[in-house]
Formats: sequence, C-alpha cells, structure tokens
Amino acid sequence: MRQSKLFTKTIKDAPKDEVSLNAQLLIRAGFIHKEMAGVYSYLPLGLIVLNKINNIIREEMNAIGGQEVFLTSLQNPELWKKSDRWSDDIVDNWFKTKLKNETELGLGFTHEEPITALMKSHVNSYKDLPRYVYQIQSKFRNEMRSKSGIMRCREFLMKDLYSFNRSEEELDKFYEEAKNAYVRIFEKCGLGDITYITFASGGTFSKYSHEFQTVSEAGEDLIYVDEEKKLAVNKEVLNDEVLADLGLDRNNLVEKKAIEVGNIFKQKTKFSEPLGLKFTDSDGKEKPVIMGAYGIGPGRVMGTIVEVHNDENGMVWPAEVAPFQVHLIYLGRDSKIQSAADQLHKDLTEAGAEVLYDDRDESAGTKFKDSDLMGMPVRIVISDKTMANNQVEYKLRKGGDAILVDLDKIEQKLKEK
Amino acid sequence: MRQSKLFTKTIKDAPKDEVSLNAQLLIRAGFIHKEMAGVYSYLPLGLIVLNKINNIIREEMNAIGGQEVFLTSLQNPELWKKSDRWSDDIVDNWFKTKLKNETELGLGFTHEEPITALMKSHVNSYKDLPRYVYQIQSKFRNEMRSKSGIMRCREFLMKDLYSFNRSEEELDKFYEEAKNAYVRIFEKCGLGDITYITFASGGTFSKYSHEFQTVSEAGEDLIYVDEEKKLAVNKEVLNDEVLADLGLDRNNLVEKKAIEVGNIFKQKTKFSEPLGLKFTDSDGKEKPVIMGAYGIGPGRVMGTIVEVHNDENGMVWPAEVAPFQVHLIYLGRDSKIQSAADQLHKDLTEAGAEVLYDDRDESAGTKFKDSDLMGMPVRIVISDKTMANNQVEYKLRKGGDAILVDLDKIEQKLKEK
Repeated sequence: MRQSKLFTKTIKDAPKDEVSLNAQLLIRAGFIHKEMAGVYSYLPLGLIVLNKINNIIREEMNAIGGQEVFLTSLQNPELWKKSDRWSDDIVDNWFKTKLKNETELGLGFTHEEPITALMKSHVNSYKDLPRYVYQIQSKFRNEMRSKSGIMRCREFLMKDLYSFNRSEEELDKFYEEAKNAYVRIFEKCGLGDITYITFASGGTFSKYSHEFQTVSEAGEDLIYVDEEKKLAVNKEVLNDEVLADLGLDRNNLVEKKAIEVGNIFKQKTKFSEPLGLKFTDSDGKEKPVIMGAYGIGPGRVMGTIVEVHNDENGMVWPAEVAPFQVHLIYLGRDSKIQSAADQLHKDLTEAGAEVLYDDRDESAGTKFKDSDLMGMPVRIVISDKTMANNQVEYKLRKGGDAILVDLDKIEQKLKEK
Repeated sequence: MRQSKLFTKTIKDAPKDEVSLNAQLLIRAGFIHKEMAGVYSYLPLGLIVLNKINNIIREEMNAIGGQEVFLTSLQNPELWKKSDRWSDDIVDNWFKTKLKNETELGLGFTHEEPITALMKSHVNSYKDLPRYVYQIQSKFRNEMRSKSGIMRCREFLMKDLYSFNRSEEELDKFYEEAKNAYVRIFEKCGLGDITYITFASGGTFSKYSHEFQTVSEAGEDLIYVDEEKKLAVNKEVLNDEVLADLGLDRNNLVEKKAIEVGNIFKQKTKFSEPLGLKFTDSDGKEKPVIMGAYGIGPGRVMGTIVEVHNDENGMVWPAEVAPFQVHLIYLGRDSKIQSAADQLHKDLTEAGAEVLYDDRDESAGTKFKDSDLMGMPVRIVISDKTMANNQVEYKLRKGGDAILVDLDKIEQKLKEK
C-alpha cells in the first residue's frame, strides 16, 4: 500500500490525558483513535493488526472444534435474573439502557446467559454433546477507571468460547486442549516466552481457573512465577496450601507484574442449572450440561504486544501480527529512482509480500522517524545512494545492522527469516 | 462440514411472536436466534451468509478506494451536541447509557460525528483529500416497533462509508462511483433484477438522496418504478416537479412495495462545518471538507434475500451468499454407501467445493425437509439406489428435475454453472 494514500498520519503528541504507553504509541502512529477514556476506534493499520490477532485466535478455536457465532450486545434482563447477575449490587460494571417502553436492557459484559439459553434450542440428548461455540464480539464494561489504553476498555472486542459437555471428565479433556490452544495463540502473537499459565481463583464451582499472564511493567496483576516449571500463581490465591497442592516451592517463585491476556474457567453447572440447559444422557436420566468459558481480548493482546515490543523510537511488531512485513522507503527526488521504487513495490506485492510503501514527498528524517514509530519488521530503503550499485538497504526493526542487498536478491532475502 | 457436528438443528416452530417471514425461516433453519424483538444473534450458518455479504461489500468498497476502520458504539455526547443531534427531541431513536460518574453516553445509531471528528487529526491540506473511510460495525436504534425480522433491528450490523472531498465536483464524481459499486453489490447478492435506484429526499443539503429499493411484499416503503429506465421515486418525494426534474412520466410508473437495502447521501458541509473539519486548499484558503455517506445493512440484505428467494418449503439461497454450495445427503444404513458418501464429501471439499454433508442418522423425509428449509443451491443424494449404477442424484434447490450423474462426473457437474 502507498503511504501517500493511507488516510492516517503519524501524530506528534498523543492526547494529554493518555497515560498508557500502548495507547500513546498506537495513537501517535495512527493505528487507533481515542474517542474517550477507555474507548478507542481502530484505524486501518490498527484494524489490520487486530484482524491478524483475531484470525490467529479463530484458527486455533476452529482447530479444537469451535463453531463461530455472533451474539448481540443488547441483553434481555430475564436471562440474567435467572443466574442472579442482573442486579448492579452483584455485577458492578453493567452498562444499562432502556427501550422506548422503559424496559431496561443490558449491554453484554460477557455472554454465558444468552449462549446457555440459546443452546436449549439445540441440545436435548447426549448425542448433541459435546459442543464448542465461540464468537469474536464487542463487550461493554462500565469500568470505574480506564487508564491502561487498549488493555482495559469500556468497550472492547472479546473472543469468548463456551464448552458444553456431558461430563466433568469430558470437560477436563477439552479444558486441556483449550489450554494448549491458548499457549499456541500467545506463541503466534509473539508473547510465548513471557506468558505464563497462572493458577487463579476458580470461584465457587472449581478449585482453580487459569489465567494467561504476560510479564510486563504495565501489568495490573501480581503473579509468582516458577521459571523452571513455566507456571505461575496469581497473588490472590497464593498460600501454603495452594503451593503444596501445585507442588511449588515458595523459594523458587519470583514476583512479577503481569497483564492477564486470557483466562479459562470451568463453570460446570453454574449457568446450565439456573437457565435450565439439560440433556438426556444414555442412561435415560436428565442432567445439566457441564460448561466452561474461555476468554481472550484481542485488543488487550494487541496492547500487550505494544507494551512488551517497543523501544525509545516506537513499536516493534512481531512478524505474525505486523500490519505489513516490509516498510519500503523511497528517498530523494530522482524520477528514475522513484520508478525503481514503484517497480520494487509492485514486484514485492505481486510476490505476496505485505509492503507499506512510503512514497511521500517527505524528508529522510521524517520517513525514518515515522517508520521506527510504526514498527514494521523489515525496513528497505531505496535511494540514489543505494541504487548507485543497484542495491537497496535492508534493516530489521528489532535491531542489527543495515546491510546492502542487490535489488534482484531482495525478494529472496525477505523469504529468508 | 458434517451436519452431525453442526451444533444447530432445524426447529419445528419459530417463536410465536415472530411475525416476519425472513426471521421465521432463518430461526427454523437454525441460522439465527431471537434474543428479543428486533435483536437477533447469528448462528454458524447465518454468520457464514452474513460474512459472505460483508465480503462482497468490502471488496466493492476497497475497489473504489475505501479504507476500513472500526469505530466504537459508545458515543461521546460532546460531538453530537455540535451537530445538534444529541437531544432525544431531535433524534428519537437513541439508546443512551451512563458512566459510573453519571456522564451520559450514546450508542451510535450512525457515525458521521465521530468519523468527522477523527478525520481532523488526519486532514489538513488539499493534498490529504480525497479520503474514503468505511466500517462494518454494529449500530443501535431504539425503534418503537420491530416486526420485520432481521430487516429492522434495534441492533444490527451496518456498512457505512464516508467520503471526504475537496469540492462538490469531486464528491459528485465519487458519488457516481459509489452508486455503481452499490449496483454491483446487489447484483452479486442475487438482488440485481429487482433492486431499483430510487430518488428520495436529500434533506436540507442536497436535492435528492438515492435509495436502493428491492421490490418485495415485505417492504415498508412505497416506490414508483419506471421499469424501462430502471429508476424509481420514493413516494415521499413524488410530485409533478420531481417527475419533470427527473424526466419521468407518471403514466409509466408502477407502485410497488419495496425494502430499502442501501442509501447514499450527499451531506456536503452538514457535519464538517459544525465539527470543524477544514482543509487548506491550493489557493491558501481554508474550506470545509465536502462529505457524503453511503450505507448498507448486511443483515437487512440477508433478510431481503430470504424474503425474495423462498418457496413453500423454505429458503433458496443464491450461490454467491449461500452458506454452502452443496448439500450432500446420504441415505440409508449401508456402511459401504456411507463410506462412499464420506469419500465424496472429502473429495468435493478438497476440490474446493463448499459442502454441508448430512451424515445424520435421520429418515430420508427429515433430511429432505431440512435440506429444502436450509436452501443450499445444489442437493446431491447418495443412496444404495443411486449407487446401484455408481451414480448420485443432483438437483437444484431453485427447481428443475433431479438427474442422475455418474459419481466420477459430479465434480465436473458442480463446476458447470
């Protein structure tokens, strides 16, 4: 894509009230726009990243048998009263609104109640189980404070998968598959090394739930990490009994700040009982369906990637989620060089490379600064200097020296990594 | 996909309060789920259709230079006060909600105000124009009544593109391109023949706007169609002056009920003036940006397709938007035939065909009834009877005779259309 056509520009200063690093960088680079505290729009480059993350998630959810749906934000109170989650005294982050006839509606902060209710139309027998249903859809949470950029929003995209099983054994088996799928998702998003499966509170229905916590100074959680076992415990459940239970030694644990990028829960019959999602088992008996819930916020993952992959000049996108793989920069005002740059853009794009082509009439300084801020994995510079020997300059955003590569070898070079 | 794995089932009766044909059929076929009046969730088959429509729209918007964004539902009142659209006396279908600190927020029923405000960060000079920005995103409208199924929802997906031009001439040129793109979209969605470009009120800023109206008894609008010129006039603007203006003869017009599937507006400076979206032109003068807005509701398009493409047995999907091209039905209980069916499912899928494979242990009657209701374009039946001569039965959902095709010719046959 030609940068001269891209409608977004880099912006010198993020809004003064924006305190989070992720939002500051993303706003300055033109990836997102702040509508108000905790409410951000995605602009073209940001949306490409978000969709890449969504597709990584989608691929892994499909691989473990997930079927995609798209539920609504508007919520019928009747369903939430059944599970006792309608009252603001019990759930303190509802956004509520009203129909013309004064009927109160909610804006979904999660979707256990509606998905459980709708499954009643499609599950009767053990033959209809297991089922795994997910969506990537907007959630609304009326947060008191919202100062973490796109990591804690009042409106945000969430992937939520719900599992419907016949027995706890069947749930346990799927739960492990989901856990492994999550590990793969964070690996693909460039967060694998620093993301820990973390034991957290299981609520009333399970001993533990599991969080996926990415170590970062921007994190709101404290976790205790056993680096060797690649496991962690959330501070909220850390006690001797839990450590004994998990076979962890307090002396091997290191305290770290971390961002919760995903969580998985065994909910068992917490929602199926009150909402009446039952099935007839092979023994002829009617039983409540055994449920689990599995969440990831793609926007929060994006914010986390920015928090952990940046330097003083800007963002440093991992290849899998970068908006473009290559930032091709043309320098100078020589029409012959510009033609060569145009041709290279065309050739690389036709060869399947994702190329953002800075064809703007701007100084080298501006172009380099913008390029560093935006953070594409590879920068290629083409100028009269490089073209003197029919070469281009190749440099990785994450570091290392700039090297000169023959123009006719650059396509090959890009395939190397 | 194996139908035995699909979590949705066909449902005998739509909810009693569901009066619209489109929602009745879609609910019965398991494509959507009714959360409440005017609020529907999309289940896997429905979501596939919706995404196909979205992608047809996306392709056409990209082709005319559109850049995709994703704005938020939560709306900052300050922006809407500037254009005088915040008050419920002026806009009567707002859904509003509140932050913890009692600040009122809106849920976007359209996005002129936020998109205009955000463009201020990215447009300064005539060199930054033209720009075309669109999204496919949820809108909320607090409709008094909602009885048209997925054609008039309180929450629905909308594609809204906004154009930002330097002059009215430039807007006019783009407006025609957008109009042509819309014509292509409705053609690709199987609505081309019965969808009319319809002159409607232009509001205070333009003489006319244009609606795309699809003729259907389920329509809420009355239009007057000149079949020869393939043009129509909305009843709301039909008068002698308008007819003279458009060169139409009242005697050639036929009154029809129609569904508004899209609309395009020249808004000119209606939003850029109050919200302060200006640019410096080449003459050094500061001018307001000239705007236009271009909407399509993908869910409404889907509902319209169902309203116009159905028969007494169910839906009849046009190939371009059908969830699957082929409904492969295996009949009987002969394991050899079932193996052949499994193999055919595998072969066709690997050859790139979209196949829903009814491998369920159900009667022929149930399978045929479900297949007709769900409406895939091609039905293929494989049974001991057809396989006696190593053949399968091929039948189009839209009508025509069932024919027998040699098993090794069926892949070829599917490519024919």
